[in-house]
Amino acid sequence: MSDYSFVDGLRDRRRRLSDRVSFPVALWSGQGAARNFPANRYPFRASSHFLYFAGLALERAVLLILDGRSILFWDQPTVDDALWHGPEPSRTELAAQMGVEDAYPLAELASYLGDRVAEVATIAVQSPAARAHQETLLGRSLPQPAQANGPDGALVDAIVAARSTQDPMALGELRRSAAIAVAAHRAGLAATRQAPTEAAVRATIEATLIAQEACPAYNSIVTTRGEVLHNERYHHPLTPGDLLLVDAGAEVSSGWASDITRTWPVSGQFSATQRAIYEVVLAAHDAAVAAVRPGVEYRDIHHKAAWVLVEGLVDLGILRGQPAQLVDRDAHTLFFPHGVGHLLGLDVHDMEDLGDRAGYAPGRQRSERFGWCFLRLDRPLEAGMVVTIEPGFYQVPGLLQDPARRDRYGDCVDWERLAQFADVRGIRIEDDVLVTAAGPEVLTADLPTDPDQICALITGA
Amino acid sequence: MSDYSFVDGLRDRRRRLSDRVSFPVALWSGQGAARNFPANRYPFRASSHFLYFAGLALERAVLLILDGRSILFWDQPTVDDALWHGPEPSRTELAAQMGVEDAYPLAELASYLGDRVAEVATIAVQSPAARAHQETLLGRSLPQPAQANGPDGALVDAIVAARSTQDPMALGELRRSAAIAVAAHRAGLAATRQAPTEAAVRATIEATLIAQEACPAYNSIVTTRGEVLHNERYHHPLTPGDLLLVDAGAEVSSGWASDITRTWPVSGQFSATQRAIYEVVLAAHDAAVAAVRPGVEYRDIHHKAAWVLVEGLVDLGILRGQPAQLVDRDAHTLFFPHGVGHLLGLDVHDMEDLGDRAGYAPGRQRSERFGWCFLRLDRPLEAGMVVTIEPGFYQVPGLLQDPARRDRYGDCVDWERLAQFADVRGIRIEDDVLVTAAGPEVLTADLPTDPDQICALITGA
Repeated sequence: MSDYSFVDGLRDRRRRLSDRVSFPVALWSGQGAARNFPANRYPFRASSHFLYFAGLALERAVLLILDGRSILFWDQPTVDDALWHGPEPSRTELAAQMGVEDAYPLAELASYLGDRVAEVATIAVQSPAARAHQETLLGRSLPQPAQANGPDGALVDAIVAARSTQDPMALGELRRSAAIAVAAHRAGLAATRQAPTEAAVRATIEATLIAQEACPAYNSIVTTRGEVLHNERYHHPLTPGDLLLVDAGAEVSSGWASDITRTWPVSGQFSATQRAIYEVVLAAHDAAVAAVRPGVEYRDIHHKAAWVLVEGLVDLGILRGQPAQLVDRDAHTLFFPHGVGHLLGLDVHDMEDLGDRAGYAPGRQRSERFGWCFLRLDRPLEAGMVVTIEPGFYQVPGLLQDPARRDRYGDCVDWERLAQFADVRGIRIEDDVLVTAAGPEVLTADLPTDPDQICALITGA
Repeated sequence: MSDYSFVDGLRDRRRRLSDRVSFPVALWSGQGAARNFPANRYPFRASSHFLYFAGLALERAVLLILDGRSILFWDQPTVDDALWHGPEPSRTELAAQMGVEDAYPLAELASYLGDRVAEVATIAVQSPAARAHQETLLGRSLPQPAQANGPDGALVDAIVAARSTQDPMALGELRRSAAIAVAAHRAGLAATRQAPTEAAVRATIEATLIAQEACPAYNSIVTTRGEVLHNERYHHPLTPGDLLLVDAGAEVSSGWASDITRTWPVSGQFSATQRAIYEVVLAAHDAAVAAVRPGVEYRDIHHKAAWVLVEGLVDLGILRGQPAQLVDRDAHTLFFPHGVGHLLGLDVHDMEDLGDRAGYAPGRQRSERFGWCFLRLDRPLEAGMVVTIEPGFYQVPGLLQDPARRDRYGDCVDWERLAQFADVRGIRIEDDVLVTAAGPEVLTADLPTDPDQICALITGA
């Protein structure tokens, strides 16, 4: 691999795409969004489809792939831009970095395409302003990628095929991203006992990312209220009996993501009830990770995690009955309402801008059953895919106090026994796993899941 | 003041607005922007106009002020939302927190207004999706706020009048924001000698903000390339001879901003040339701050800063001639191309979404002269305004090597003398200043500007 360069990797990606399509492809990078006034912008995040094939996070750029050639359309910054934002490499230099054959100002895209504009397939970008440009230039309104058909739909399918398994260049970046996220969690663990609030732990975690020129791949979850699945509040003080649920990942400067969850006791010591549930979730996690291999249906891994979780809850006396029957009745969704994971790549939920076209095999669609409806991935695994495995246990008041659910599951929940576990609000354990023929490779394995090892990282013991 | 509550403060603001307008006002809060896929969103930042009068950063909300009454329109999250994002206070509870008279679902805004919808004035929000909702509901396309006339324009003027000077509640938050930003800079200073890169200092600074439940009020500038005015790159290693320019401010959880710049030597010791230029910039800063009082034209403060800077550069032998004449010839713009500051409030460039309607007095417009064209504020100061004062000295290759400029200023720059100051790429010193009848009050005064005191914070001496 030593002679395999960044440019070679990008060219290979574009060639693989060219080989799958019979029409010109134009991919927009998007443009930054204003925060509260036009000059105060969120950090720009390029469209992952552009980034995958172009390699550089240029703003307001188009990559055209036409007759086996790749052409960049991008406007050189003005002298005024350079005063405020610094000199940029020239368009020609960028073209060389990307290994594209030609590069022109953005305004020349229309004349370059001429009548062939009608043949061009594209994917609508997230940025409304960039999408307006896309639609103006292509002279048509664009479908949501999830609904695209014709050439746009064929392009979606070709990109899903290309991006679903990770090439060596992608894997290098995913490993780098995982290592940074592991370091961030380790820093968070070490800082917990001195931290007065959730926000203080979050600060330590995100500082680790920022110092590595990465950023959070998504809004970090750092909460003592783990039962709120996507909690984005950080104001609670940390008190000794709390569990802290931390779901935080890195996006490295090249755009690749990681996604890790750990749940740890603020004091550095689990209570007996917390430890008991932690071990049940860990058993579900370990069983699900162990099941990851090519050809396995991801929904079967979800089912396996649910089964092991239910089995553990039966052993603890929280649930009553046969695990298989309890899972058939969706009793696990009382405590584990979400899916066991998702694809990971440039996006933390990889290609979720395409709806379920990446996550679900052709012809499949989301279940309407509660819990199962949140499963983001339902296709057979392939070698080279990277997925998360993230089972959890939560006591969500809205679920557990719902009269319909209490009625439906009245025979299989021992509510009095459950009440003894009141100090467990939410536990999730999540790793990033590469599918290989030899079995699962956990990219985030340098962060322990073992409860004693986790506690040792908190107390420094 | 002890009995003056948050609700009282908000009601006073709404009353002051009501008193200035003769039409109903509807203010949209906006909605979050997708980052790379719909569920991966940038942290939501409410429109500052909404936030000022509503007090709470609710997403997809409308505050209606009609016949002296205030009504909130906002949709209670669904049970599904609560699973992912946690329980929210009820609409009624939020209405009580805001002190509004009534609260309804968003969908009822149209029927509530009925025919009076045609009378409603508004301000177009930044978020394209929220703006589309605004336009649909009001049944008309909305002008850019800078161009608004009729009731929309009158609303802009009324809001500029209300927000240009800070009430006690705002000042409390601005002081809190300033204190957090001061602490962040102090942490950055203390971390510099151990930091391998710009990114590592940035991490320390932003961690200080995050730990206080604040966030950066704008993309932090932490750079050894201070001549790039809005540098957002952080990859350079720190080497002992470097100056580090840090322009970083806090946005506290209530939305209020601070904005501080300091420039310091990575080693903890200025070179003789760095110190000489630093003291010139500091003299310009101090003179500009001292000039801040009610009735003074802000452009005269800009002129004063330019004059003192030029005088210092003449003393150093870099410029030749009479300071007054040099400033008249815009010679200062060779080294100080930007304006001396701007309004500060909920936005770091306060109300810049309104174009220059807040920054420029009626009838005034931006100069076409280079340098002066970047002045963001040109109106007489009033007691209660908060402004930044931020002169700087930069060696921007694009300016200093521009043949037209070298020709025009050939007689007044000693290029050989200037070459001796090659280790000064950019120095800026910025504070946040409250205008009072008694003179300037520097809200950020707890962070020293004195070069010896700055160095002591780096070395711990």
